[in-house]
Amino acid sequence: MRLGSRAALVLFVIGAIGGLVGDACHVAAGTTTYLDETLPFIWKSQLWFPVAVGLATVATGELRLRLGPTRPGRNPGEAAAAIASVIALYALTAVITDEDPVAATVLIWMLAIVIAARFGGGMPALACAVSAAVLGPLAEILVVEADLAMYAPSADGLIGVAEWLPALYFAFGIVAARLAELFSES
Amino acid sequence: MRLGSRAALVLFVIGAIGGLVGDACHVAAGTTTYLDETLPFIWKSQLWFPVAVGLATVATGELRLRLGPTRPGRNPGEAAAAIASVIALYALTAVITDEDPVAATVLIWMLAIVIAARFGGGMPALACAVSAAVLGPLAEILVVEADLAMYAPSADGLIGVAEWLPALYFAFGIVAARLAELFSES
Amino acid sequence: MRLGSRAALVLFVIGAIGGLVGDACHVAAGTTTYLDETLPFIWKSQLWFPVAVGLATVATGELRLRLGPTRPGRNPGEAAAAIASVIALYALTAVITDEDPVAATVLIWMLAIVIAARFGGGMPALACAVSAAVLGPLAEILVVEADLAMYAPSADGLIGVAEWLPALYFAFGIVAARLAELFSES
Repeated sequence: MRLGSRAALVLFVIGAIGGLVGDACHVAAGTTTYLDETLPFIWKSQLWFPVAVGLATVATGELRLRLGPTRPGRNPGEAAAAIASVIALYALTAVITDEDPVAATVLIWMLAIVIAARFGGGMPALACAVSAAVLGPLAEILVVEADLAMYAPSADGLIGVAEWLPALYFAFGIVAARLAELFSES
Repeated sequence: MRLGSRAALVLFVIGAIGGLVGDACHVAAGTTTYLDETLPFIWKSQLWFPVAVGLATVATGELRLRLGPTRPGRNPGEAAAAIASVIALYALTAVITDEDPVAATVLIWMLAIVIAARFGGGMPALACAVSAAVLGPLAEILVVEADLAMYAPSADGLIGVAEWLPALYFAFGIVAARLAELFSES
Repeated sequence: MRLGSRAALVLFVIGAIGGLVGDACHVAAGTTTYLDETLPFIWKSQLWFPVAVGLATVATGELRLRLGPTRPGRNPGEAAAAIASVIALYALTAVITDEDPVAATVLIWMLAIVIAARFGGGMPALACAVSAAVLGPLAEILVVEADLAMYAPSADGLIGVAEWLPALYFAFGIVAARLAELFSES
């Protein structure tokens, strides 16, 4: 693995905690509801959710390192800004769950592009973002099909998941790629 | 014309498509409603709307070039960020249509200033923004007076158009001026 | 005083006007309601409110200058962007008053961190932000306890004040510290 065990652990923890915070927004706002409560809850999430987001963060970071050389430099402020940007977008999707899906989807996509322009780094970052924007919603569609969770009726127009979900994962892919750059030098 | 035919075409297409995307948000959210459906619709807009926004983008870009020298350099990421910023603001106005007008107007003006500080370039860009902030709402007031379209009762406090509309056009002027800089070297 | 009388006056005026604009959003949206109307109103605020915010801006700026050397350079665009960022956040809290408190609080905190990463300057700025995030809500809790004003039932979960209030003050502290840097050279 290119990422190194320490960087992989950092990315897993950031992803898992970020996933917990964002999912708490979704559950509290009624954007999503867990239907299967077999596993224990951590805060408002079933145990598998933060684990999945943590692993997805590591996988996206590893993909980033395999796709090309990284920009040098470590910067805690840059890492904080990148993480806060995507969690803000996550929380915003919770706040606008009941809004018109066209406006909501355009808003989240445009903000994801702003995040990509700010934190992205050329084609490798873009490839991570596109990959996340495809695989993330696909995984959530399977979760919904398996009756593990559901989206609110006002935000389930994309085969059972929210129309803005690919945009949120796009931004996630950009940020995970940036974090891999920032933490891979350890 | 300073802009050059290729740059003018690029600005027209960006403006027309951006207008269609933003207007789709407004129509879907009920911010605006077309009252006259004489012309064919493109997506959710009457044909004249994207044409008008495209022409306004070209006119603002041309004004920018006549007002002074431009900053050098082409940057696809910068163009994407500028376009995405103003369409995000456009979509946000749709999302907050039913909110209190004071809070909505302050929010959109402050974000327009953030966009101006990020993408603006001195007095020429500011002149484009102020010009758009005056002429754009004026044109829409005429559209409303002519019964071609209407704003929602919750967002029609500025002579029939939305209180935040000047701020949205202000950001549009900044971004059109920036695009003129970015694409004028062709 | 490190700040100098002219810089202190500038910070007081910016804080007082910014406070008036933000408070107008809160009052118009029903986020807050004045219960004691003894003093005259300025726009939608009781006279003591803009005075308090102006003084808090000066005090935070003075604290910033005492905590360490400042970054050189004056920049009107930077000052405008910093001021607009925090007033935008203020207006956003008004817009989302009736939203779920978890999502609202996460959103405002994450945007406050983005503002801190953009305008903050190391530990001195962070100390100003933390100090404002503690003392500001504490002062407002006393205001509520004294029955001078109240928060809406949907946004009073933090001992009578809004759950997102510390995040708003955190961003305020960052911006006040930045303004002290920008205006202290006079």
